Amino acid sequence: MGLPSLPFTTTLTSTSCVLTRKVVGRRGACAMAPVAATTAVIRTARKGMCEVIRALWLAASNYTQRLNHPRAYILCGTLTPMGLFGGIEAGGTKFVCGVGTGPEDLQTVRIPTTTPEATVEAAAAFFRERAADGLAAVGIASFGPVDLDPDSPTFGHITSTPKLAWQNFDLAGSVGKALGVPVGFDTDVNGAALGEARWGAARGLADSLYLTVGTGIGGGAIVHGRVLHGLMHPEMGHIRIPHDLAADPYPGCCPYHGDCLEGLASGPAIEARWGGPAQDLGPAHPAWDLEARYLALALTAWVCTLSPRRIVVGGGVMDQPQLFPKIRLELARLLNGYIRKRELTEGLDSYVVPPQLGGRAGVLGALVLAEQALGA
Amino acid sequence: MGLPSLPFTTTLTSTSCVLTRKVVGRRGACAMAPVAATTAVIRTARKGMCEVIRALWLAASNYTQRLNHPRAYILCGTLTPMGLFGGIEAGGTKFVCGVGTGPEDLQTVRIPTTTPEATVEAAAAFFRERAADGLAAVGIASFGPVDLDPDSPTFGHITSTPKLAWQNFDLAGSVGKALGVPVGFDTDVNGAALGEARWGAARGLADSLYLTVGTGIGGGAIVHGRVLHGLMHPEMGHIRIPHDLAADPYPGCCPYHGDCLEGLASGPAIEARWGGPAQDLGPAHPAWDLEARYLALALTAWVCTLSPRRIVVGGGVMDQPQLFPKIRLELARLLNGYIRKRELTEGLDSYVVPPQLGGRAGVLGALVLAEQALGA
Repeated sequence: MGLPSLPFTTTLTSTSCVLTRKVVGRRGACAMAPVAATTAVIRTARKGMCEVIRALWLAASNYTQRLNHPRAYILCGTLTPMGLFGGIEAGGTKFVCGVGTGPEDLQTVRIPTTTPEATVEAAAAFFRERAADGLAAVGIASFGPVDLDPDSPTFGHITSTPKLAWQNFDLAGSVGKALGVPVGFDTDVNGAALGEARWGAARGLADSLYLTVGTGIGGGAIVHGRVLHGLMHPEMGHIRIPHDLAADPYPGCCPYHGDCLEGLASGPAIEARWGGPAQDLGPAHPAWDLEARYLALALTAWVCTLSPRRIVVGGGVMDQPQLFPKIRLELARLLNGYIRKRELTEGLDSYVVPPQLGGRAGVLGALVLAEQALGA
Repeated sequence: MGLPSLPFTTTLTSTSCVLTRKVVGRRGACAMAPVAATTAVIRTARKGMCEVIRALWLAASNYTQRLNHPRAYILCGTLTPMGLFGGIEAGGTKFVCGVGTGPEDLQTVRIPTTTPEATVEAAAAFFRERAADGLAAVGIASFGPVDLDPDSPTFGHITSTPKLAWQNFDLAGSVGKALGVPVGFDTDVNGAALGEARWGAARGLADSLYLTVGTGIGGGAIVHGRVLHGLMHPEMGHIRIPHDLAADPYPGCCPYHGDCLEGLASGPAIEARWGGPAQDLGPAHPAWDLEARYLALALTAWVCTLSPRRIVVGGGVMDQPQLFPKIRLELARLLNGYIRKRELTEGLDSYVVPPQLGGRAGVLGALVLAEQALGA
């Protein structure tokens, strides 16, 4: 239980304090890479040793958290001082790029998703123009599947997408190379979860769940203030839930699992079951009671497993305002008072809530990924 | 996105560096409490400023993590320097108390659970005797239900247990008062999860799941190296899983939920369904296929939600060695290759595994809680 060794070397001078770590490159090359932001922060904090320690501690703490589960893609030896952050919500039809420090000053542009090279170059041109004084880092919340394993040779790549030109494309690496800054990288749903947790409906909560119900169903969990990854990343849409075939003979549409949650409750499942697009079914249609039942069964599993402090549910299917009260009612019925927390009884109206950042959650979450990539 | 303010004050001298924070007592009294270990660590690390910074950073980082989700119960103004840690696995029939630094040197004693006062006093006497040179902190992994909310006036209490004498008993506070040291506090299953993650079957993994299947079903998740809590703590046994009433007409035995996982797959459920104790059913009994099916359905939900790097399954029901291969086979069938990770395909034998610490997981986890309480 002694002191573990720190994963970097500390060099303290009268004007700066630099943390360096050994970086092992793809082909085994080693270099000592200064840790982002530390030098810059300490140079500006000339208020005595306590301030140096404070700044150093902060950078080291963030950096080490990042080392434990590194999402960042360290590309260059010398990192730029603290400057603007950039975010990219990388989707299959458009890239939303933004610069800023949060919702108040976010400036965005939409770029159609064409070839990987042209799309990345258009995004890079936007950042070069808007952040001429110095872009500090970029975050990418990407469509997938993506490789998030920092030990993998294809970390930061889009992997087996049906969009052929993007298969096995090194998105994080290409953006980092084009801009020469550190790149934070995660899935689109994790990006949106981060955005809502930082500035949106789960603001100020260290543990939250963000769920999107649309063409597919995906979830991003924030645990201890950080995105949960583990072995890979969650695939929450694919949990099994009770399916009463007598009441709902629809077999489910998931090509892998049939009647998993996504197979039963995604937009395509609703359409296939009822013979028409979800948005054309009236608010009194029985589809919504069944949908609320399935989603509440899934929320029950997540409440019992993740114990989130709030659940944010977005996505196209949730554009039906009648769904929220139905889901809350069914969730309360399923939990049946077992978990004695106010949030899960009289507080349910502010426990299962819609998103607050609308279409900007992903790009705002990407800004947080940029910040994390820099260790700032 | 600037520097957040640190939650403590730093005082640096030529021989020591002390972090202090304002501690608000139950009745509003304030005091500046030195943060554990920092002074001691720095006094022993006289290797220059970099070592001071390293020690300070470590203490501050751990301490701040603990502040964000404080499990510790800070009782005294001056904390003892780094010394021995104590652990208590507090059960309804016995308290297992131990001192040591890990499995190698753990010394334990078993104390029957009688009245709260006599039991705590017997535990305290053990620690006073075995750690005469200075107990640094104690951790408690407790039977429940317990209050883990650090903002609650009943934090550290056992709440609505059927053991009347223990209802609303301030276990963490009583132990802390008897010994005058900081107390870490968590549930018994979270304690066992921590123990297995530190020294047992999930050693070295930052994200793991520990499950116990016995009289009840409980789970503890380690995420980013720390116990997941969130709003409360998980109640994993109460997730809903598909239940084919035609194949298994048993309605489940959970008084709250009927056929939730615990209602279908706990020891009492097996006994009620098949008309005899689980341990009396032969290894070829159909009970085990059904049990494996239910547990694999639950594991599927947790793999898709928590993405653990390994799942450790213990508890009395798992004393049937034929269960593990059945569960792995069924889990693979349910996931159906959707999550393309070696651990979930050819690596399943080392993904779903039995515990390695046996009956000592809880008390060893309690040692880790002690360490966390001290911020060491």
